[in-house]
Amino acid sequence: MDVNRLDFYIGLSLAVSSSLFIGGSFILKKKGLLRLASKGSMRAGQGGYAYLKEWLWWAGLISMGVGEAANFAAYAFAPATLVTPLGALSVLVSAVLSSYFLNERLNVHGKIGCLLCILGSTVMVIHAPQEEEVASLGAMANKLKDPGFIVFAVCVVGSSLVLIFAVAPRFGQKNVLVYILICSVIGSLSVSCVKGLGIGIKQLFAGTAVLKEPLFWSLVICLAVCISVQISYLNKALDIFNTSIVTPIYYVFFTTSVMACSAILFKEWLRMTTDGIVGTVSGFLTIILGIFLLHAFKDITFSRDSLPVYLKRGPQGFPCGQQPYVALPNQDLEG
Amino acid sequence: MDVNRLDFYIGLSLAVSSSLFIGGSFILKKKGLLRLASKGSMRAGQGGYAYLKEWLWWAGLISMGVGEAANFAAYAFAPATLVTPLGALSVLVSAVLSSYFLNERLNVHGKIGCLLCILGSTVMVIHAPQEEEVASLGAMANKLKDPGFIVFAVCVVGSSLVLIFAVAPRFGQKNVLVYILICSVIGSLSVSCVKGLGIGIKQLFAGTAVLKEPLFWSLVICLAVCISVQISYLNKALDIFNTSIVTPIYYVFFTTSVMACSAILFKEWLRMTTDGIVGTVSGFLTIILGIFLLHAFKDITFSRDSLPVYLKRGPQGFPCGQQPYVALPNQDLEG
Repeated sequence: MDVNRLDFYIGLSLAVSSSLFIGGSFILKKKGLLRLASKGSMRAGQGGYAYLKEWLWWAGLISMGVGEAANFAAYAFAPATLVTPLGALSVLVSAVLSSYFLNERLNVHGKIGCLLCILGSTVMVIHAPQEEEVASLGAMANKLKDPGFIVFAVCVVGSSLVLIFAVAPRFGQKNVLVYILICSVIGSLSVSCVKGLGIGIKQLFAGTAVLKEPLFWSLVICLAVCISVQISYLNKALDIFNTSIVTPIYYVFFTTSVMACSAILFKEWLRMTTDGIVGTVSGFLTIILGIFLLHAFKDITFSRDSLPVYLKRGPQGFPCGQQPYVALPNQDLEG
Repeated sequence: MDVNRLDFYIGLSLAVSSSLFIGGSFILKKKGLLRLASKGSMRAGQGGYAYLKEWLWWAGLISMGVGEAANFAAYAFAPATLVTPLGALSVLVSAVLSSYFLNERLNVHGKIGCLLCILGSTVMVIHAPQEEEVASLGAMANKLKDPGFIVFAVCVVGSSLVLIFAVAPRFGQKNVLVYILICSVIGSLSVSCVKGLGIGIKQLFAGTAVLKEPLFWSLVICLAVCISVQISYLNKALDIFNTSIVTPIYYVFFTTSVMACSAILFKEWLRMTTDGIVGTVSGFLTIILGIFLLHAFKDITFSRDSLPVYLKRGPQGFPCGQQPYVALPNQDLEG
């Protein structure tokens, strides 16, 4: 196995384990807060700080940190076109874990959504470009000087300034897309910085004196600025709009914007076959539909009468599709 | 482009156009019957034959015939592992056409289901084995003599005899799986016959005297027997159980059984890469989920209150995701 392919698998494992940690962290935190509530402590929502004494809450925080670090590292090994879409798996992990540990019911849509996320991710992984594009900060600097990327970066900064100062004050409270667009567009720059820093840190471990390079510190500053803007506007969006709307839209916009940026910066699509491109796009669209199903119908309870028979279980608990549709009168199911 | 690849694309086009014709035929027939009903003629359900004078009904019948012929021909050019799953597209075509021409509403689930069928089919097409396995009836005869296939065929015939004579009389009326299993298992043999006959007819056009070969006529007889059994049990299933249950289950069982038979007969999976196998399976599972969504929630009407805001349109007709979730009171949407 050549080094590039090994790198690809390291990056893939980091991205998947990052989703496990991040998805799990939500459950650990919530479990901790619920345990506190059952003990009668003052809840976080009421301004209490008792959660700082709860080890489950800390476990959640640490799990989140480990997850974010793994995600950061994944970008240093595998293409952004692969790592970013796999973020969908953390939504899936948290949905599955909450149905097991928090007894939050996952309805049929949720289950289909989870399956679709897995299928779409699988298809994307098969087709993702396997070559690592940049090996050193010097090579990264060359990529960043490419006219195509400079135009892209100027457009990104320009459009987000327009969004922040002209559009957001007037429409930000009314239209869910405004804040999410700001986060997503800026997010593509963060990922580029993360990618560059990851490569720098890899070089650092290999003994290169990257800390003396100005590019390294420019990337650190740029990343800090981008992430602060992102967090601030994501919080604004979550503050006004429901999580079940913000999460899927943000996933779609953020991932699309990262993939566009990565395509311009690394031109990885040029080296892909038509099949590879079609496969990657199909996988991405499948994940989007999965995320949509997971979220859009989260709070829907179907009335039993409107469900086809094989989706409801009668008193005898017939398994799926095991009973005739017309022969069984409705009262049998309800009684 | 080499001959095998050309064959593959001919088979693919035949399979796709077959789905267009078969999917369209349902709509033409129904449109014809509806037009008759509006003229006040006696309806088919009441024993009338006026539909024989309606050109739309005939167009539907011819369209169905053309579709089945194209499907038959597709098997002669492309692997069964590709042609059979693409049958899903006819379900999609008929769903889309009926929402346009018959004003049958396609709900959100239906739309997502259609998209998933397309995505899954795309992924399957990318990964399907592109080699044509058998070029002549002689080669086909050798494949049929393979011990693996003989064991498979004996199992198929044996298990369907058990199902027909022992299981069906006792459980056929109660369990939807019995009749469908019979059709699906026998269906795998029909497809093998169709494949052999298709190759024979191709040879016939090329000037080979296949009509003198006993194998050709054995395949014709075997196909006639298999198809009569299939049609008879499919009609029984449709008679007792609802179409929206029978169609998806039949699709899944029939396709799986054809793929198993094709794998044993042509061993096409042995020549596939791991990526190809994983991709084919992912695509197939995506189609299954799509078919499920198209059918399972067909008759569900959501109460507007239980839907998230971006799935319902208010009086101002806000496009998807354009309005805040919490800020808008419910009466604005209902008024």
